[in-house]
Amino acid sequence: MNYKMIRYTLGLILRFEAIFLCVPIVTGLIYREWQGLSAFVAVAGLCLSLGFFISYKKPENMKLYARDGFVIVSLSWILLSLMGALPFVLCGAIPNYIDALFETVSGFTTTGSSIIPSDVLEALDHCVLIWRSFTHWVGGMGVLVFVMAILPLSGAQNMHIMRAESPGPEVSKLVPRVRRTAIILYIIYFVMTLILFFLLLFDGSIDSGAKHTMGVFDAACTAFGTAGTGGFGIKGDSIASYSPYVQIICTVFMLLFSINFNSYYLILRSKLRDAFNSEVRVFLVIVAVAITAISVNIYLTEIEGAATVGEALRHAAFSVASLISTSGFATLDFNLWPDFSKLILVMIMFIGACAGSTGGGIKVSRIIILVKGMIRELGDLINPRRVKKITIDKKPVGSEVVRSVNAYLVTFVLIFAGSVLLLSFDPYVYTSPMPGGEVDGGKLLTNFTAVTACINNIGPGLDMVGPAANFAFFSPFSKIVLIFDMLAGRLELFPMLLLFAPTTWKRKQ
Amino acid sequence: MNYKMIRYTLGLILRFEAIFLCVPIVTGLIYREWQGLSAFVAVAGLCLSLGFFISYKKPENMKLYARDGFVIVSLSWILLSLMGALPFVLCGAIPNYIDALFETVSGFTTTGSSIIPSDVLEALDHCVLIWRSFTHWVGGMGVLVFVMAILPLSGAQNMHIMRAESPGPEVSKLVPRVRRTAIILYIIYFVMTLILFFLLLFDGSIDSGAKHTMGVFDAACTAFGTAGTGGFGIKGDSIASYSPYVQIICTVFMLLFSINFNSYYLILRSKLRDAFNSEVRVFLVIVAVAITAISVNIYLTEIEGAATVGEALRHAAFSVASLISTSGFATLDFNLWPDFSKLILVMIMFIGACAGSTGGGIKVSRIIILVKGMIRELGDLINPRRVKKITIDKKPVGSEVVRSVNAYLVTFVLIFAGSVLLLSFDPYVYTSPMPGGEVDGGKLLTNFTAVTACINNIGPGLDMVGPAANFAFFSPFSKIVLIFDMLAGRLELFPMLLLFAPTTWKRKQ
Repeated sequence: MNYKMIRYTLGLILRFEAIFLCVPIVTGLIYREWQGLSAFVAVAGLCLSLGFFISYKKPENMKLYARDGFVIVSLSWILLSLMGALPFVLCGAIPNYIDALFETVSGFTTTGSSIIPSDVLEALDHCVLIWRSFTHWVGGMGVLVFVMAILPLSGAQNMHIMRAESPGPEVSKLVPRVRRTAIILYIIYFVMTLILFFLLLFDGSIDSGAKHTMGVFDAACTAFGTAGTGGFGIKGDSIASYSPYVQIICTVFMLLFSINFNSYYLILRSKLRDAFNSEVRVFLVIVAVAITAISVNIYLTEIEGAATVGEALRHAAFSVASLISTSGFATLDFNLWPDFSKLILVMIMFIGACAGSTGGGIKVSRIIILVKGMIRELGDLINPRRVKKITIDKKPVGSEVVRSVNAYLVTFVLIFAGSVLLLSFDPYVYTSPMPGGEVDGGKLLTNFTAVTACINNIGPGLDMVGPAANFAFFSPFSKIVLIFDMLAGRLELFPMLLLFAPTTWKRKQ
Repeated sequence: MNYKMIRYTLGLILRFEAIFLCVPIVTGLIYREWQGLSAFVAVAGLCLSLGFFISYKKPENMKLYARDGFVIVSLSWILLSLMGALPFVLCGAIPNYIDALFETVSGFTTTGSSIIPSDVLEALDHCVLIWRSFTHWVGGMGVLVFVMAILPLSGAQNMHIMRAESPGPEVSKLVPRVRRTAIILYIIYFVMTLILFFLLLFDGSIDSGAKHTMGVFDAACTAFGTAGTGGFGIKGDSIASYSPYVQIICTVFMLLFSINFNSYYLILRSKLRDAFNSEVRVFLVIVAVAITAISVNIYLTEIEGAATVGEALRHAAFSVASLISTSGFATLDFNLWPDFSKLILVMIMFIGACAGSTGGGIKVSRIIILVKGMIRELGDLINPRRVKKITIDKKPVGSEVVRSVNAYLVTFVLIFAGSVLLLSFDPYVYTSPMPGGEVDGGKLLTNFTAVTACINNIGPGLDMVGPAANFAFFSPFSKIVLIFDMLAGRLELFPMLLLFAPTTWKRKQ
């Protein structure tokens, strides 16, 4: 284990956090929010000085092994969150540090689960709101990928870090050099966010009669939240009170940010056939099927707000895009929808986005590998002498990738079950969020979907953690469990688990 | 596909079903239940004549391929259930055929989910009750294994059938010849059931003050249900109103029947070290941990009926044994227990018994392989150059077994999710089974645990399908879904799925 290199990287991360904190600082200056501003300036100063202190000397041996990469990524994300939570406490927006940490981890991991009640939310300072949303944007593409794109770290070793932080079963480099790959990804990310921002801003020139219209601030926050597929809203009802135009733009962009960014690079290089690979095609088919099933279901059961086919389709599309991209924005409270629609939504929560996107979940490519593995097994039973490899896009999938994906599924199930079990100790009293106090699913469903929402980095679940509710009622212990789930989900389980494996910390390889 | 051989075997199965039906016929004679008796005699006659008709001529080519084995096993179980349901309808015990089929499949697959309300149950004829319980015993060790033990079918081909019907990731022959293995297994099964029967009968000589005392009839039914890890009770409250002595005997034997029968053979041959292999040891550890956790939990939360440590321990042990063995007998209504205990119970429902036992579930050996696969993956991440195989009891596990177990998990999740989705269409009205009408988990929890109980061949679930309730309220469509789940669960998923694969039915291999 290269401890010096770990310390050095953590120092760099702190320096970068100081830079990230300039966004709320500038916002605070613009809106003259002195109390909030001073909190952000203080934390930025702390990060900067601490960062310089611990990464003063560049280590001589910059060689990294795979396990170093995992440890660096896990610790970086934890440190980033620990520091990022401080301004919330200092400016008084979230007095309790565990709550603030929950909110920050939820931000960086692009989960979007919040502990802030709707009425408090709209009264928060602009600088606080933009920091929440900006953490989504930073976390979406990966913090260390960002560091790698900016700083000329030693070449080949970076791959270990990239592999540990990038979502999906395999990491493919777009170009031979890792650093250039990181830069290309960030440019695509930045440009797409910019386009989204301007499209949202255009809402101001339409007289839609909606309750809220997008100004520069709203558009920036919403763009950050959508691009990172995070889902923190800045209004009490998320996106519901904006115009249908805004909702449709968000629907489209949530889906766009759920697609592997490599595809955009391939489109730019006119390799259309490669861009629309099986993962993208399967993703689009799942989206289409889910939207159709839900819009028919909510239209036929005459859900409020979905009276016409067009409205049903718009809300269904928004919810599907929001949950499969693991953003978690809401227009209608899908907690009130029929069980069939809710189950479809829960299923796509688990499926999640494409690998190499900013979305979370198990990832479509893993689902493809798992299902193809199952079909191969059935084929082998019918005809045992046949030898068949799993192929995707006519390329064989390495057996170590198949093995790793299967191990991922098992790990996922174990962490999931363990978390639900730990949450069952929480003594909170069930209070129904349904109209008329009718009980929906009780604590079991609440805990089950809370873990679903956190480990898949979505945001809202069902029942007491539905889109119209928040996570504040959980005990501090439950919140720590959920914080772990969010980090584990974002970093694809293994890096967080490795922190607890004793062999990781042995000096000798 | 050897169609002639399939037809021939199905004919044999029908003849054997006629023999099985002698058990209720004899019971009917003893208790002079003429109406029930005539129904069983009629169906036995039908089975016998139909059986002789379609298996009149022995096929010349008796060669079986793997897929023939799967198809034979699936179709045999379906045919057995279709015919076995007829007496229930004819004698008027269960007027609706779908309900009768549900009850019969639940019997043969050793599930024990019932559609008969408690008050109706106790009024049923003895011949009907013993047929329900006897189907558990027949299904427990496998119908085709029974056929193989009796009839001298051609040797080596039998392995395909044995593999398709036996529970667990691998089938090991105790002795070189398959038929002799089947005979040994059935002798162990028969002798253990007999011991259990006499131990239960002993209850009659104790004045325990319990509401019910075991007579010959009760002891026979309970022994069949326990040995097959089925769980049909013959009293409205399952085992609750028998003496603690009976409950403890049942607890011990449910666990004994959950252990791989090979272990008993090895014990008889004084190979103790081999008998207590890792699967048995892990199974016992899981049982011990679950019992401890639940008894502490229900004792501390002062659940009714668990006021003393001894009572808490007895009920916890009974419930854990009942659910991990996938029997589904009940002494206390665990639906009223705290969430933590309920979650533990749901988890052990999924884990299930050991391979090669009469119990269902995913099986402990599969869990071991899955968890070892996960640990290997973590090890590989820390030290990528290391090559390590999964070993169990110091023997390496073949990669095709690991692959198959992983495919099993994926198939399980897909069938599970699909079934819950199909059940969500069921328009039944939720009525709370909780005291005071307090809502527990609603339709989602009911459907979720109904599928859990059926696919793992357990019996009761939670909420509306809790131990004090039954499955009658589901729509016929939902019942068919659950019938499929029970069969799929008992035959370990793949045989049932292969029936739907077009390539299975191609004439050419």
